[in-house]
Amino acid sequence: MNICIVHAHENKESFCSSLAITAKTYFEKEGHQVSMSDLYADKFNPVGGKHDFIKLSDADYYKYASEQLHAHETDSFVPELKKEMQLLLEADVLIFNFPLWWFDVPAILKGWIDRVLAYGFAYGGAYGFFDKGRFKGKKAFLCVTTGSPAEFYTPKGVHGRTLSDILKNIHQGVLGLVGFEVLPDFAAYGVSRIGDPERKKILLDYNTYLEKHFA
Amino acid sequence: MNICIVHAHENKESFCSSLAITAKTYFEKEGHQVSMSDLYADKFNPVGGKHDFIKLSDADYYKYASEQLHAHETDSFVPELKKEMQLLLEADVLIFNFPLWWFDVPAILKGWIDRVLAYGFAYGGAYGFFDKGRFKGKKAFLCVTTGSPAEFYTPKGVHGRTLSDILKNIHQGVLGLVGFEVLPDFAAYGVSRIGDPERKKILLDYNTYLEKHFA
Repeated sequence: MNICIVHAHENKESFCSSLAITAKTYFEKEGHQVSMSDLYADKFNPVGGKHDFIKLSDADYYKYASEQLHAHETDSFVPELKKEMQLLLEADVLIFNFPLWWFDVPAILKGWIDRVLAYGFAYGGAYGFFDKGRFKGKKAFLCVTTGSPAEFYTPKGVHGRTLSDILKNIHQGVLGLVGFEVLPDFAAYGVSRIGDPERKKILLDYNTYLEKHFA
Repeated sequence: MNICIVHAHENKESFCSSLAITAKTYFEKEGHQVSMSDLYADKFNPVGGKHDFIKLSDADYYKYASEQLHAHETDSFVPELKKEMQLLLEADVLIFNFPLWWFDVPAILKGWIDRVLAYGFAYGGAYGFFDKGRFKGKKAFLCVTTGSPAEFYTPKGVHGRTLSDILKNIHQGVLGLVGFEVLPDFAAYGVSRIGDPERKKILLDYNTYLEKHFA
């Protein structure tokens, strides 16, 4: 299989980065191909805009989605985006690996979604939504670290909602919408407040998760 | 009152930009002060990272939230962020004005949230959550345009959920968390598929919304 990890943490020494490496190591040991889009290391620009396109279809009135469709039809996305799109086309599994910031992905990963999952390429044009989505047959999941402890993410906790509920926009409105089968999240809670033994256990748990879903 | 509009659309001729101007015009006519953070025009960098800080507290192990707290305590955020923070402190009303991209704000606005609502400044440290939040007493709302028509955003529609439900992470997990009283969204649906008469009606409806909540 081809595995595409999109990783969004600036510090290579972070626990979040350790999770990305854990997945890469697991899949490579199993004989799979892994690509790692390390957005901070790659200095990925998350701002969707005119600079996404080698040429514009309409110089008079700029509309992002229309230009995305035109770029898809005329092969005129900039190389930075074409590279990510090609990795995605080849992938059997897509992993978003990130720290939860404001109940959401960090902006650098939101920008990957905005720019790479372009209209015409990932949805719209020839492609439908959900079970008619372009990436039907592929799997995806979120590997997420949180600052807050697990008990915050319960109906009676500080946040009043489960992490799975908080991430529903990404499960359903992003990955599901373009056809991915979305597996359960792998969540590492409160990672800034725990010690090495707990962190080692989480990495083992992640290996167990990967074996369960991909062995 | 002081009104802070954070606007996230690249095209000044877009309907989304017309909504931002409508709010600015309304509030100024009523004698209020309006600041417009036009993120695309300002080339706002949405990537939260080491470049947010004039100096780092810990050169050995970089942790974003810890550096945010340190920067708050030592007045060492970069000028780009200090400016936005000052506008926010002075604001009575905060408006996020944006097109819905992937059930969420565009990355450039997500980055404003990530970087400006810094740990120590907007929450954590001396400040609690929700009704103990730093911005208690201030109001906020979302002014959002969508590509999909209104009927997509119903329990039986394509997206299976209301727009208000989709935006709950921002209402509750961003604005509410730091203490804002969150007013109902103003939503303009399917704006790329409608004509001038419908657009004019929406702008009038927005004026009515503003009168209702702020007259």
